[in-house]
Amino acid sequence: MDKKKTSKGKKIPKATIIRLPVYLHYLTELAQKGISVVPSHDLAELAGGNGPQLRKDLSYLGEFGTRGVGYNVGRLAHHISKFMGLNKEQSVAIIGVGKLGMALINYKGFAEKGFKICAGFDNNSQMIGKKVDDLVIYDVRDLGKIIKEKDIEICIITVAASEAQSIADKLISCGIKAILNFAPIFLKVPDDVVACQIDLSIELQILSFYRTLLK
Amino acid sequence: MDKKKTSKGKKIPKATIIRLPVYLHYLTELAQKGISVVPSHDLAELAGGNGPQLRKDLSYLGEFGTRGVGYNVGRLAHHISKFMGLNKEQSVAIIGVGKLGMALINYKGFAEKGFKICAGFDNNSQMIGKKVDDLVIYDVRDLGKIIKEKDIEICIITVAASEAQSIADKLISCGIKAILNFAPIFLKVPDDVVACQIDLSIELQILSFYRTLLK
Repeated sequence: MDKKKTSKGKKIPKATIIRLPVYLHYLTELAQKGISVVPSHDLAELAGGNGPQLRKDLSYLGEFGTRGVGYNVGRLAHHISKFMGLNKEQSVAIIGVGKLGMALINYKGFAEKGFKICAGFDNNSQMIGKKVDDLVIYDVRDLGKIIKEKDIEICIITVAASEAQSIADKLISCGIKAILNFAPIFLKVPDDVVACQIDLSIELQILSFYRTLLK
Repeated sequence: MDKKKTSKGKKIPKATIIRLPVYLHYLTELAQKGISVVPSHDLAELAGGNGPQLRKDLSYLGEFGTRGVGYNVGRLAHHISKFMGLNKEQSVAIIGVGKLGMALINYKGFAEKGFKICAGFDNNSQMIGKKVDDLVIYDVRDLGKIIKEKDIEICIITVAASEAQSIADKLISCGIKAILNFAPIFLKVPDDVVACQIDLSIELQILSFYRTLLK
């Protein structure tokens, strides 16, 4: 999954895909501060990159700005947002309401970026039917029904590693095409489903390795 | 930070650095199952890649396996672990004991991979001096003292975005060289410090975009 084709058939590198939401994040911040134009160098620097890289990234969107002037903040934010399909609210469910699931339910950043957490699921009878921050926790056996009812498009898996693949299989059979997985196991999914993995200990291992390279 | 030099001066691509701990994860699992030899194809598949990529990745370690036989599981795990500097326990602190900080303190995966959470820090007087899962929560004003006392090498930032940079600056002034940041802000750090960013909403945006590319 290193390169993906855009709808126009142009291949877009993974590194660009990872940077686009970062640009969007800073454009939104600039707009909130009332700034309407940003030089490419400044935007690139905010995102931890450089001007040529930024211009290359935005070329995949057919967006070039005006040389010597910079980018119109609102227009570029809208452009990236639309390109990435982020210009509408998306419904999300969290499967596994343990401590991490709870923390994610309470995480304000999702709503700010247009992701509405609509349901939590667990198999613990003590949790089912309860509310966490106004969010109802459903029985994991009702996944199919609730996903349909609430038009859920993205699921976040925070169950134990031993359960994650069977939960993923169930989600896929319910029509879910996008899974963010926190369980420390690499999910096997068909080609028409995307699964991203966040393994927190692997992130620490990578960080630790970079640290050794500094020495 | 796309390519890093190893101690032998050989540049190692970021994509390889990200995959090495994944191989290590599966090698450890295989060893736990009593499996002592693994064909490169099988190990690559577990990690979601392919044989040639695996062999290329391992070539940076000077590790080639035996053609037609495969890799010695224990030896390769030890090799990767040593190469990445993961063959000793590392002490970690969590700055910001809100819901996410709490979830991380309770996350069992860190200890399994050799990262010992040694201290939590907060500025909330109701939290300071309390224990979460046997872990003492200290006053953030005592960062320097406790980092030294407990020989903390890696810090995880889970404070609000508005506080993250000043916390990072303080950690760096206390000698910390490795920071894992969950606050939705890109930290500015000097060249001799590594900061990795996990922005959960950006992960969802990337996932969401990949989903639109499938259509």
